[in-house]
Amino acid sequence: MTDRHPIDLAELGQQLRVDSVRAADAAGSGHPTSSMSAADLVAVLFARHLRYDFDRPDHPGNDRFILSKGHASPLLYATYKAAGAIDDAELLTFRESGSRLEGHPTPRRLPWVEVATGSLGQGLPIGVGVALSGKRLDRVGHRVWVLCGDSELAEGSVWEAAEQASFENLDNLTAIVDVNRLGQRGATRHGHDLDAYARRFKAFGWHTVEIDGHDADAIDRAYAEAASTAGQPTVVLARTLKGKGVLAAEDKEGLHGKPLKDAAEAIRELGGERDLRIEVQRPAAARVLHAERSGHLELPRYERGDSVATRDAYGQALAALGSARGDVVALDGEVSDSTRAEFFAKAHPERFFESYIAEQQLVASAVGLSTRGWVPYASSFAAFLTRAHDFVRMAAISGAGINCVGSHAGVSIGQDGPSQMGLEDLATFRSVYGSTVLYPCDAHQTGRLVAAMADLEGVRYLRTSRGGMPVLYGPDEEFPIGGSKVLRSSGEDRLTLVAAGVTVHEALKAADALAQEGIAVRVIDLYSVKPVDRDTLREAAERTGCLVTVEDHREEGGIGDAVAGAFADGGPAPRLVRLAVRNMPGSASPEEQLHAAGIDAESVAAAARLLVEQAVVR
Amino acid sequence: MTDRHPIDLAELGQQLRVDSVRAADAAGSGHPTSSMSAADLVAVLFARHLRYDFDRPDHPGNDRFILSKGHASPLLYATYKAAGAIDDAELLTFRESGSRLEGHPTPRRLPWVEVATGSLGQGLPIGVGVALSGKRLDRVGHRVWVLCGDSELAEGSVWEAAEQASFENLDNLTAIVDVNRLGQRGATRHGHDLDAYARRFKAFGWHTVEIDGHDADAIDRAYAEAASTAGQPTVVLARTLKGKGVLAAEDKEGLHGKPLKDAAEAIRELGGERDLRIEVQRPAAARVLHAERSGHLELPRYERGDSVATRDAYGQALAALGSARGDVVALDGEVSDSTRAEFFAKAHPERFFESYIAEQQLVASAVGLSTRGWVPYASSFAAFLTRAHDFVRMAAISGAGINCVGSHAGVSIGQDGPSQMGLEDLATFRSVYGSTVLYPCDAHQTGRLVAAMADLEGVRYLRTSRGGMPVLYGPDEEFPIGGSKVLRSSGEDRLTLVAAGVTVHEALKAADALAQEGIAVRVIDLYSVKPVDRDTLREAAERTGCLVTVEDHREEGGIGDAVAGAFADGGPAPRLVRLAVRNMPGSASPEEQLHAAGIDAESVAAAARLLVEQAVVR
Repeated sequence: MTDRHPIDLAELGQQLRVDSVRAADAAGSGHPTSSMSAADLVAVLFARHLRYDFDRPDHPGNDRFILSKGHASPLLYATYKAAGAIDDAELLTFRESGSRLEGHPTPRRLPWVEVATGSLGQGLPIGVGVALSGKRLDRVGHRVWVLCGDSELAEGSVWEAAEQASFENLDNLTAIVDVNRLGQRGATRHGHDLDAYARRFKAFGWHTVEIDGHDADAIDRAYAEAASTAGQPTVVLARTLKGKGVLAAEDKEGLHGKPLKDAAEAIRELGGERDLRIEVQRPAAARVLHAERSGHLELPRYERGDSVATRDAYGQALAALGSARGDVVALDGEVSDSTRAEFFAKAHPERFFESYIAEQQLVASAVGLSTRGWVPYASSFAAFLTRAHDFVRMAAISGAGINCVGSHAGVSIGQDGPSQMGLEDLATFRSVYGSTVLYPCDAHQTGRLVAAMADLEGVRYLRTSRGGMPVLYGPDEEFPIGGSKVLRSSGEDRLTLVAAGVTVHEALKAADALAQEGIAVRVIDLYSVKPVDRDTLREAAERTGCLVTVEDHREEGGIGDAVAGAFADGGPAPRLVRLAVRNMPGSASPEEQLHAAGIDAESVAAAARLLVEQAVVR
Repeated sequence: MTDRHPIDLAELGQQLRVDSVRAADAAGSGHPTSSMSAADLVAVLFARHLRYDFDRPDHPGNDRFILSKGHASPLLYATYKAAGAIDDAELLTFRESGSRLEGHPTPRRLPWVEVATGSLGQGLPIGVGVALSGKRLDRVGHRVWVLCGDSELAEGSVWEAAEQASFENLDNLTAIVDVNRLGQRGATRHGHDLDAYARRFKAFGWHTVEIDGHDADAIDRAYAEAASTAGQPTVVLARTLKGKGVLAAEDKEGLHGKPLKDAAEAIRELGGERDLRIEVQRPAAARVLHAERSGHLELPRYERGDSVATRDAYGQALAALGSARGDVVALDGEVSDSTRAEFFAKAHPERFFESYIAEQQLVASAVGLSTRGWVPYASSFAAFLTRAHDFVRMAAISGAGINCVGSHAGVSIGQDGPSQMGLEDLATFRSVYGSTVLYPCDAHQTGRLVAAMADLEGVRYLRTSRGGMPVLYGPDEEFPIGGSKVLRSSGEDRLTLVAAGVTVHEALKAADALAQEGIAVRVIDLYSVKPVDRDTLREAAERTGCLVTVEDHREEGGIGDAVAGAFADGGPAPRLVRLAVRNMPGSASPEEQLHAAGIDAESVAAAARLLVEQAVVR
């Protein structure tokens, strides 16, 4: 830190409080009391420790500040004003429709916000991801500062982050905890017992500093100590008072998330408005990150008819993509031998991140890495990615570009039983804003989709299967996002089977058996579940009149719903039938599982035959 | 413990190893090595400490054993055999189709299994729920024993559990950690460093014991110490070897989840087959739980037209239900002032469980309580229940009866912005096996549904709204699960608006405006999203030809998909149009949000008008 422009830090803290109160008062909602407790912590950070260029938020040398307690957004915006990034008029647009200053900050609207917060317990895990980037990839020497509330330390995700941060020696990461004692509805478990938190963080391998969070000098020293601590992350545990500085609000219950009743009086009590200006230190010059993005991508080639699991094809394609692109990184939740992320890990160990069995941290690391320009692929069993659903949801709000890859999809995994079967993953990922959902049935298709995912926006999901499936397509076949493949088609098709992944092969077998009986059916490989290929589905509907979806997934939220959604525009809709997993599987072989769920070739053929016999279809 | 039938514990451990090897060998899959590390831990527990009546698994005095590392199921089944609960022939049906002995144990098939495991990091959190029941409700003095793997301690959910267990002084809970050093893909973070785990548990307020997990006497003493420790939970950290007892497998990487290569040789090395019998101690007599279930339920009454938020109606109905039924309990994730679970907490503090900001533990506690016969209602913001998705998924596999209640659904919450908006919750809960999904639009309807939920099976979800909505229905109106209400209807209806929750009111306003213009439309309140009222939808389709769904939810997985699904039986399908939240909301008032998303009355009327004008509808 330097002292180019000495500033009265206590005064600055009061200014941030006053402006927090003013912003919430103008909005008629918001969290001034949670802002007031942390005002001194943020004032000292921005005035004396953070290195940041507000004109160049993408500067690789910038420190990164994450407001994990996102509801304290008035404080963040008050600080932006003090730093000259926004003016007072904009500050008072807080929470208005169209304002950049949302109730909880998001990078979609403000370039200085790293990630969307507002779901507690996410800032530190994502900060770990950013710090991993700094420590292991960028090596620019930037620091990551995360301001947490005390309530959110009850979230398990915080302890997944604590474990990973110390294990990875992230001394470029500082957590600042605003221990104001009060949660939303009353006292926290540990109140002002800083030691209780310190014991926990120490046990998890962190350096800890306990301070009075309203003593600017103590804060200043604590940050300096954090910055000079080598080999481990530091947590600054700061005793604060919610509503600090206004007697009617200070340390009082029942005032969470409410503007102060008498804002004018509160501002007087805080000493009135000020107009101090923070001269935030600029970062040192730093090289641009991973400039050499592109080499020639050489995807693996397979023999048509060979049996290859799409999880194998995933691992092989990812390793190849990693060779072609220096910006691709991979993460896995201690199952890389199953997801086949290990192929990447072996080829590019410096860009592989082991997250152990901590799926929230797995996705959080991916989000953090994405903010620094990396293209992450995070894999686990599809079933276990449900653990990270809230992180995926928030990633979409951040606009983060991440790839999630779920293996062991569906009942076709066999004996391991329902706990290991991803049967709800398509529903989960389809409902995420702006997501792309892909589900390949063949090795070449998998490779192409893995490569295409890298350049998409937002949350991308790839679903892979455990068992081997015959290679259907040639190595040069293209698979555009939003497309599909018509695999069987004639002028006499009496219905259309719409499948993806393992059920494509079942549908093909069914179609061939039906053809033997003189029943022609169309088969569509719907590898792009979202966006869905409306045109091809529509044409099939017009020509064949009936679409039968077949999916190794629950009947809600998956392929059946995606196909129905393609006709939700008021146009004439075809007859629809859906075959999906309606039972609760036990242990059984993959073939038995598919049969029990009624989605194997025999069941598909039987359903088609019934529709034809009952003259439901023409 | 007693010594009625002394048994050679080391021999028993070997028998459990042999039978684990045999079961996996017969199946050709499974996890013998993970069973072998924990064999002595389980042998000593069942032979000398557990009190359990295998003939009466529902006995209230039974201790509860949870195999959190569910993949070690061969060990569990070998133990059942030793205890005489199953025979050797059944043991060898392991993982066969139709066998009760699944790859991962589930209570659907075996009465002695408390909850389904197989998704790691869930056993201890659910054990906390069972222990809470014992400590605060049943008061029968039963103990809860949870066997965890070391890998799964990386899951944040374990630390949510650790925090709650010590805070609630759960000295009836013992965690046994099988520290075998090896995860699925290689070494864990801490290897055999028992101290690393002990530091963490101690910091979280637990009593810790570190032992050699293959020393039967040490194990015996550790369990006795756990049972005699008052005021805090105990963790027994046991140093073990994966594959213990077979040199080719012992402490070796790369053998996770695989049968031993040479089972016959392994069995010889382990000393061959044995037929020791464990005489498991019976529990003491205990009173039956909460026998007095039913009083008269007096739901709150409201004036028609009054503005009442469904979250308020939820809290009020739940408090009333708690008065009528002694078996109803409530839990909340530190937002009970927002979800209104606080009404129950104030009326029935002894049956309210504060989970702080730890949604995984929130749902896990509910699952644990449900296993002891309680009827739990677990509430948080709908958005934050996504955090517990994997616990909900596994609850369905367990067949657990739990009620989840998500408040602050949709964009209609207003200024707080997207991080706080439940926009994917219908998709999540609809895709869960056997779930019921309810979404009321009025206070009386909410009350009736809250009461009806108590008697349903499986996972039940209720979605509530933040803002006030006019009371539409009378206090005696009935709302069967799977039903709907036709609110506007005539012989001239040109289309049908299908809505639920806040959009019912928007649809009614739109219908009234359209009626003024001479356009009659039908309006359906689809309060039961799953199961859905096919008959009423079908009739509306036949009479009006076009259904327009209007929902405060993403377009995937919600009401639009539910309605489309009602026509997925090959029958003729109506024209469908869906109005849903396609934008990424910022901050704005509830009215502005509904308008921006195109789901307010004005947008609905405009869409209907367009359909009529374009003669899309007749």
